[in-house]
Amino acid sequence: MQKHNFSAGPCILPQSVLQKSAEAVLNFNDLNLSLIEISHRSKDFVEVMDNARNLALEHLGLQNKGYQALFLQGGASLEFLMVAYNLLEKKAAYLNTGTWSDKAIKEAKLLGEVVEVATSKSENFNFIPKNYTVPKDADYFHCTSNNTIFGTQMQSFPETKIPMVCDMSSDIFSRQLDFSKFSLIYAGAQKNMGPAGTTLVVVKEDILGKVSRVIPSMLNYKIHIDKESMFNTPAVFPVYVSMLTLQWLKDLGGISAIEKINNQKAELLYNEIDRNPLFEGFVTKKEDRSKMNATFNLRNDQLKATFDDHLKQTGINGLNGHRSVGGYRASMYNALPLESVQVLVDIMQSIEKGA
Amino acid sequence: MQKHNFSAGPCILPQSVLQKSAEAVLNFNDLNLSLIEISHRSKDFVEVMDNARNLALEHLGLQNKGYQALFLQGGASLEFLMVAYNLLEKKAAYLNTGTWSDKAIKEAKLLGEVVEVATSKSENFNFIPKNYTVPKDADYFHCTSNNTIFGTQMQSFPETKIPMVCDMSSDIFSRQLDFSKFSLIYAGAQKNMGPAGTTLVVVKEDILGKVSRVIPSMLNYKIHIDKESMFNTPAVFPVYVSMLTLQWLKDLGGISAIEKINNQKAELLYNEIDRNPLFEGFVTKKEDRSKMNATFNLRNDQLKATFDDHLKQTGINGLNGHRSVGGYRASMYNALPLESVQVLVDIMQSIEKGA
Ligand SMILES: Cc1ncc(COP(=O)(O)O)c(C=O)c1O
Ligand SMILES: Cc1ncc(COP(=O)(O)O)c(C=O)c1O
Ligand SMILES: [Mg+2]
Ligand SMILES: [Mg+2]
Ligand SMILES: [Mg+2]
Ligand SMILES: [Mg+2]
Repeated sequence: MQKHNFSAGPCILPQSVLQKSAEAVLNFNDLNLSLIEISHRSKDFVEVMDNARNLALEHLGLQNKGYQALFLQGGASLEFLMVAYNLLEKKAAYLNTGTWSDKAIKEAKLLGEVVEVATSKSENFNFIPKNYTVPKDADYFHCTSNNTIFGTQMQSFPETKIPMVCDMSSDIFSRQLDFSKFSLIYAGAQKNMGPAGTTLVVVKEDILGKVSRVIPSMLNYKIHIDKESMFNTPAVFPVYVSMLTLQWLKDLGGISAIEKINNQKAELLYNEIDRNPLFEGFVTKKEDRSKMNATFNLRNDQLKATFDDHLKQTGINGLNGHRSVGGYRASMYNALPLESVQVLVDIMQSIEKGA
Repeated sequence: MQKHNFSAGPCILPQSVLQKSAEAVLNFNDLNLSLIEISHRSKDFVEVMDNARNLALEHLGLQNKGYQALFLQGGASLEFLMVAYNLLEKKAAYLNTGTWSDKAIKEAKLLGEVVEVATSKSENFNFIPKNYTVPKDADYFHCTSNNTIFGTQMQSFPETKIPMVCDMSSDIFSRQLDFSKFSLIYAGAQKNMGPAGTTLVVVKEDILGKVSRVIPSMLNYKIHIDKESMFNTPAVFPVYVSMLTLQWLKDLGGISAIEKINNQKAELLYNEIDRNPLFEGFVTKKEDRSKMNATFNLRNDQLKATFDDHLKQTGINGLNGHRSVGGYRASMYNALPLESVQVLVDIMQSIEKGA
């Protein structure tokens, strides 16, 4: 049965990318060798890494603007620490909009003072705080563009003179933004970019080298930049699949093209959540709704078994909400076709009709 | 043309493992979903992680002995730092037998005093120092069992009461040792275990929790243990391929079975290096020779073009020595068949005959 994969991450990837990745595991570039058994210093893999780094900057419109793209190991979770290690001298400002921001704050506190400019924690993060002030004397401001667990997404970012750092793990490459407003962007690959195991870091070089501490080699962005993201052995397969996905996005017309489809998917689903009396959204303010992760509940718990059964029969995968929110979460990343959302909406309508 | 892959890492993996890995990228466990697009918290992937962890302990004979196996990101290079973060309170003892030991020492020095018990650096690491003393009051003793770059391998390990930590990146699962003598073993996957992107850490739990510093979450072994190696999203594909390779090794008869073949391969090649007047080994003492990485030189530089051409014609891949050693390096990891070594030896003999 064909699956409709709404998983929150790792998540759906383009079918053509999966096909090419499987082929490369058997025979890469007609070398009669697998992608995963050649040296990372070989011409063939260095080209993959270069392409991946260039494509990332190209999609974000950050080529020739003083930025470097890195593909590191450790996940976004290691970036929580690395950001602070590389940038936090005295004080940093964090906006707390969800579990991931909260974890980023925890790691940063080990290295300096953290000012939480605003938080929606007491409301289980069901909205995005606004009208906060970012202290001018902080070393940087950190935010999470999309809150994967709660289904909120920042629609605007503060104007600030200090470097802005953003965890874009769950909405990178999904919508146009002026990315040059950010001094550092990071994102675990396993949503819009590739398989788990590599993390994209895009950093403006001139913000580095300003802290007084000695930074361990593996945590030091400057060292990774100097070694062109090959200070040590990179995660070859995840980087390759990410490169293919970035190429797929380019062939499709880039972020502006995928954004139109993402808007259609989100509109289709949220309209149904609102219209259908059986369902309600989790996020309190509509303007804070995430186009990547739509969180919603069944108003009547007694229908749960029927709904879940429909989901299963139709091949819908990964729709359970995160344990800290409950209910349902439909993750609609770049590779998810509009058709899958339509299948979900059809089910929502059919249980309304008592089918 | 069939390839004979002598690459130093990433390196050859069993053909059956590559086949299964490619299939899983298209359709995993008959789910009609790719391995890389399902949640790492799904039953199917949790089973992979559990199997991988259990197989690692089983091969090392460390089940039910107070050890935990973890599959982390960051490569062995991040372990250089993590080892010190978790274990170094005041002073640590390191044996310096190569570039990798040297790098491990560099990171440890950021966190405490490092005593280098012995080093072969002044001789470009062409032998393993012996007869050194490990200070009894150090927090731990660190060594590198096999020096990938220089082709030396430790045949014996010191008897010491302090915890022994070993970087086994390039010879893990290749030979029988009393692994219970080690309190912590780590190894980047990309030699005998799998593709780049995951690192095995096997740690005796009772050595943890003794340093006074606060350890950042991602660097804290205890946190990774408590979360069963899923504190954050693991490198799904590299862990899966590692699990398959560990299963392949088990089906083959385990470490003791593969060790016999590894001994045959090493004997075959070193005998030829010694016998053949055109070649000489790099390592000065025969007892220090690595069975994984054989480093050797052509005595007559003028034959280089001919030899290299023969290698190319025969499909031999990855035989160039590391830039810091020069010459040639034949890496003969577990998955390399004896037949490939025979092909190499045949070429060495044919250029001797002037063919
Ligand atoms: C927004 C966000 N940040 C950080 C993370 C943590 O990423 P990782 O598991 O790669 O460390 C996630 C994971 O889902 C996420 O959604
Ligand atoms: C013995 C040894 N230790 C450490 C490393 C570094 O591993 P990684 O590149 O995964 O950080 C290597 C890499 O080849 C190695 O051979
Ligand atoms: Mg969140
Ligand atoms: Mg409704
Ligand atoms: Mg070495
Ligand atoms: Mg000789």
